[in-house]
Amino acid sequence: MKLAILLLFLVISQLATSNGMDVHLLRPFSGVGDHPITGVSCTSWRFAVETNNLRGWLTVPSTCEKYVGNYMIGGYYRQDSAIVVSEAIKYAKALNSSGDSNNIWIFDIDETTLSNLPYYAQHGFGVEPYNATSFNAWVGKSMAPALPESLKLYEKLLSLGIKIIFLTGRSEDSREATSWNLKRVGYHTWEKLILRGAGDKSSAVVYKSAEREKLVKKGYKIVGNIGDQWSDILGSPEGNRTFKLPDPMYYLS
Amino acid sequence: MKLAILLLFLVISQLATSNGMDVHLLRPFSGVGDHPITGVSCTSWRFAVETNNLRGWLTVPSTCEKYVGNYMIGGYYRQDSAIVVSEAIKYAKALNSSGDSNNIWIFDIDETTLSNLPYYAQHGFGVEPYNATSFNAWVGKSMAPALPESLKLYEKLLSLGIKIIFLTGRSEDSREATSWNLKRVGYHTWEKLILRGAGDKSSAVVYKSAEREKLVKKGYKIVGNIGDQWSDILGSPEGNRTFKLPDPMYYLS
Repeated sequence: MKLAILLLFLVISQLATSNGMDVHLLRPFSGVGDHPITGVSCTSWRFAVETNNLRGWLTVPSTCEKYVGNYMIGGYYRQDSAIVVSEAIKYAKALNSSGDSNNIWIFDIDETTLSNLPYYAQHGFGVEPYNATSFNAWVGKSMAPALPESLKLYEKLLSLGIKIIFLTGRSEDSREATSWNLKRVGYHTWEKLILRGAGDKSSAVVYKSAEREKLVKKGYKIVGNIGDQWSDILGSPEGNRTFKLPDPMYYLS
Repeated sequence: MKLAILLLFLVISQLATSNGMDVHLLRPFSGVGDHPITGVSCTSWRFAVETNNLRGWLTVPSTCEKYVGNYMIGGYYRQDSAIVVSEAIKYAKALNSSGDSNNIWIFDIDETTLSNLPYYAQHGFGVEPYNATSFNAWVGKSMAPALPESLKLYEKLLSLGIKIIFLTGRSEDSREATSWNLKRVGYHTWEKLILRGAGDKSSAVVYKSAEREKLVKKGYKIVGNIGDQWSDILGSPEGNRTFKLPDPMYYLS
């Protein structure tokens, strides 16, 4: 029976794709695993994550590994990002910002500006617990590609005269690797690149809110703020408008 | 070809359902309509709405009517609600709240406590512009069913000794119809039922934040706050923890 279903699915998805229809298979969550409730699909889990209903989770449920992998690698991650950036660009254009040199837009880096998908594809798309040593080795290679929709937003903001602030939870000792990575994939200029100080053990939301407060005190006006984590875009001062890019692979508080 | 695909889809979804798999058909967005961008699916539109990226929209794009209808009427709306309520109940239990008589949980009403799906199913699931006369006539009938997951949360909170505040954008002149509707579908008690005063033209977020401020000044502690709109759960004081139920049918600022 399962083989028949698989066969039918392969046939239909081939036909469907060639006719422009998307058929998206959900793997229902069986109840095995550490987080979602019995009988709830991975799509519902992802909805709960992206809407800030599910918080503080450490790993993607193991039964959702393929789901998250398909989402990230297939077209849906790009589409979800595209609609966010489309709104951000519409908003930015409507600001009529040119001439006001204090206007800034804050970008997080990981999964907002740069993509660590090559790393996460080797590490279960978030199913494996975070390994700092391994991740920092990846950061040090400066090989993360640009997120294409974010690069589009970045370029549009520069053309509108809005200054770019990169504000990241990456540590200060990765400044060189991070700068080089940004530049080699197209993020050629910025007003500031703010990284976390070595001794800073505060949560992401506390650290980033404090840095945004410093920027406001310096006279900048945060016209936009984009990130993949809720901790990137919550916490006063958030900025005049925030945008949340998708990220079902990990959660940072 | 399309008939063959439909037939195959019907067969596979029957087989899939009987084997516990969910197959969810996305209708790619063709570019016709007033809101989403060309080539972006209705699922991306829905996620952009639910994550507060898309704001101030007046109607569901016409090309997403069937998508939203299927979502609301099929199992996905219920699943997405279930995972939110599961988290809310887990959070509420962990509060160890019994004995503290000032703890309150705020519930919005429409699409949070009561379901207006019978009305919206007759009005394009949000594709039609809002018609106050027609909607108020529906409200006056007191026929809205309870949202089953929300009722579950309500009952759990009462058992934990947490008081219930209903805070709604419905106007004061619908108090009787609203009270009767709540009671007849199982919401048998509450600490307060707050409706919008006749002359109040403020936005939902301003009105609800102000009412929550009054509650805090009266000595209540908002341990939880649940709504289907971002305007239900944003604006200080939001409460110790907020939860957002799904609602791809309409947007209230």
